[in-house]
Amino acid sequence: MAVIGAQPQSGEQAFNIIENLSDCGYEGQVYPVNPNYGEVMGKKTYGTITDIPGDVDLAVISTPRHVVPEILRQCAQKGTRAAIVVVQGFADATDDDGKRLQREIVEIAREGGVRILGPNTLGVANAFVNLSTSFMKLPAMRKLPVAVVSQSGMFFGKIGGSSMVGKGIDLGNACDIDCAEALEYFGQDPDTRVIVLHIEGVSDGQRFREAALRVSGKKPVLALKTAWSRQAAGAAQSHTGSLVGKDEVWGAVFKQAGIIRVNDIDEMADLVRAFCSLPLVGSKRIGVITVSGGFGIITMDACARYGLEVAELSPRTIRKLAEAAPLWMKVGNPFDIMPTLMISPQSYGETFKAMLTEVLSDNNIDSVILVAGAWLEEASPTITDVMEEMSQAFPYKAIVWYPCDGWLYDISVDCLSQKLEHGGKAAIFPSPDRAVRALARLARYSRFRNSPG
Amino acid sequence: MAVIGAQPQSGEQAFNIIENLSDCGYEGQVYPVNPNYGEVMGKKTYGTITDIPGDVDLAVISTPRHVVPEILRQCAQKGTRAAIVVVQGFADATDDDGKRLQREIVEIAREGGVRILGPNTLGVANAFVNLSTSFMKLPAMRKLPVAVVSQSGMFFGKIGGSSMVGKGIDLGNACDIDCAEALEYFGQDPDTRVIVLHIEGVSDGQRFREAALRVSGKKPVLALKTAWSRQAAGAAQSHTGSLVGKDEVWGAVFKQAGIIRVNDIDEMADLVRAFCSLPLVGSKRIGVITVSGGFGIITMDACARYGLEVAELSPRTIRKLAEAAPLWMKVGNPFDIMPTLMISPQSYGETFKAMLTEVLSDNNIDSVILVAGAWLEEASPTITDVMEEMSQAFPYKAIVWYPCDGWLYDISVDCLSQKLEHGGKAAIFPSPDRAVRALARLARYSRFRNSPG
Repeated sequence: MAVIGAQPQSGEQAFNIIENLSDCGYEGQVYPVNPNYGEVMGKKTYGTITDIPGDVDLAVISTPRHVVPEILRQCAQKGTRAAIVVVQGFADATDDDGKRLQREIVEIAREGGVRILGPNTLGVANAFVNLSTSFMKLPAMRKLPVAVVSQSGMFFGKIGGSSMVGKGIDLGNACDIDCAEALEYFGQDPDTRVIVLHIEGVSDGQRFREAALRVSGKKPVLALKTAWSRQAAGAAQSHTGSLVGKDEVWGAVFKQAGIIRVNDIDEMADLVRAFCSLPLVGSKRIGVITVSGGFGIITMDACARYGLEVAELSPRTIRKLAEAAPLWMKVGNPFDIMPTLMISPQSYGETFKAMLTEVLSDNNIDSVILVAGAWLEEASPTITDVMEEMSQAFPYKAIVWYPCDGWLYDISVDCLSQKLEHGGKAAIFPSPDRAVRALARLARYSRFRNSPG
Repeated sequence: MAVIGAQPQSGEQAFNIIENLSDCGYEGQVYPVNPNYGEVMGKKTYGTITDIPGDVDLAVISTPRHVVPEILRQCAQKGTRAAIVVVQGFADATDDDGKRLQREIVEIAREGGVRILGPNTLGVANAFVNLSTSFMKLPAMRKLPVAVVSQSGMFFGKIGGSSMVGKGIDLGNACDIDCAEALEYFGQDPDTRVIVLHIEGVSDGQRFREAALRVSGKKPVLALKTAWSRQAAGAAQSHTGSLVGKDEVWGAVFKQAGIIRVNDIDEMADLVRAFCSLPLVGSKRIGVITVSGGFGIITMDACARYGLEVAELSPRTIRKLAEAAPLWMKVGNPFDIMPTLMISPQSYGETFKAMLTEVLSDNNIDSVILVAGAWLEEASPTITDVMEEMSQAFPYKAIVWYPCDGWLYDISVDCLSQKLEHGGKAAIFPSPDRAVRALARLARYSRFRNSPG
């Protein structure tokens, strides 16, 4: 890889791509290119890409915009087939020069057989090979089965509190490599199970629709379509030079193609979690076990809001739950487990396990939402142990958890999520509403997969 | 205070009220009452409340339900005027006995001059006097100017990741003290600036509406009305014996009374944050400063969604911002500050301060949304310092921050929030959508305050 326009300055305000590459542990050969320096970050530095002795697979170009055409010509001459044009000021600029320059680099690249990512991009990130071409320092990446195709490098970081990029492509102005092509790429990538799109606009709607339909039949594809408001559409023009299209048209395209539209970054983070960690449950019949009657009711409201059914438990299940509950208690769904916990001679963990087993064994129930504090971590078995065991015993039922954070004390939800979610066991959500919404989207996509169109 | 039905067992599964009182640092006199023990938690224990030598202001009753009537008679005899009936199995029970018992205790209390909170309640929490009658251990409370009136003790804990109860009343079945009365109480409480209601139903709608109108003219009142769905309404009947009422009626009542309805616990947490930390800005003209063009566009979409205006900057402001930006850049609102940061000879902090000052000085702008990572903490001045300074320089403008967590590294948002929010300087939100929604609710309530009805 050559980094063209490499700078020797180090630290946060230096935006040093070579330093960042080294910090994230990239082990491939990196050649700095800059005629003004003999050495950058301890590496021999070349005047132009053509001076580099070995083959160069990828050129990362971070120079003033007006020299980019000449550098692309040199890339073509060197036989380098891929270029990431980091620099801004092309179709995203306000002046005519920017638009003209973008047309020019596309022509040079086509003639020279070079593919361009960008311009105006952080480039690519790939946790599987410790690679990030970002000029901003990224938080630590993890080998997650999630790929992000975006028009903003911000998605390479954490979204909704979690890092979710196993692999990422920032399309920037998408002058050559576009959303459809990146989507198809991840559709065929064996490391990727869930694909996330951040779209301001695409230039070829037909091509996008065809790619989306092909890929979403194999893997869930989430899309955050932005710039749908009038004012934002104008701004997208100067952000990435995008043609944003009518929002109703996008809605129809997403629906036809089985793409799961998300409305904001919270929903994006929630659905990544759901699709990574839960079985694809198509049915909508939910069981609720809760330590709080009030939150049981909140969960029921959420089911009504998102079209899920708080199903009737079978008479057998009701009998079993009632045997462990106080006599005065009306047992139903949601099942308020607190009175049972208070009179049970067993530990919290054992009581939870027994009650969960009853509800998950019920043929009327496909998914279970658990409202229970992580204080149960102090009991034995812990609630995470119980959920892990349940997810193995009932692999075709989705188990989700709202660990009502009133009762979390010092136990980190992050720590619990890593244990449960990355093992593909269960998913944790920050509210009952968000847990229910995620299950509803899971059910909708599952039905699309079973009968697309 | 007497705790009737006090138990000697200790630890998580013991639900020991006296232990919890002592853990939260309560310094008032507490008398355990239980005829079976001479001592509980090192305190002399009495057979009945009437055996206690001194006056008893409050009786917390945690006994089997069938002895509660007799205990309330003893409270009346002792001259104790307030009782918290913790125990379940009254109007919340499935059997006729429960309903009959609830009617009975109300009669006894009225005759004996005793007020009842509950039954089926965690009671009260008050961080200002280190008091919590909860039988479940609560997370550490803080002296926040936020009071919660709920029908579930879960609200005493953390909601949306933050503890927000300075003072709390769990109404439980609300057989005597009801939502209207608790609301009026906090309306007059000098420690309370924001009131949060969790309502399943009320028995006297007219009384609630009058109280709400009186209080919301003085302080913001947020309400989460649950049990609005058909199924949940039935469940509320067995949770707290509540008559839930028609949701459209509730909508109309909230609107007339100037109550700010929240749809879920995320929104509740966000608005508590906004109303505690931000000036009551009535206008909808927003300025956006962002390190990410993509998130600037997301913020514009959110403004369209919630009815705020991404206002035009004055020609003077545009000129000032353009002077610091690259020549090719189109300067507008949202203002993409990244290119300026990259070419500025000053530190991040100084550059942010200069740009924020320009936008906040603009008469076209009433509130500013900042999209910027907390990596800026490493610069000097830090972004929190800058926001603190700005909030002092522009006290009538609301400053909110989405610290795009892609770039947070190891700096805790919690730590930043405590510094900024508790000083009443600025508020932090986990997404641009939620920041914008909070500003929109702030503007709506501000207009209600200026011209109610």
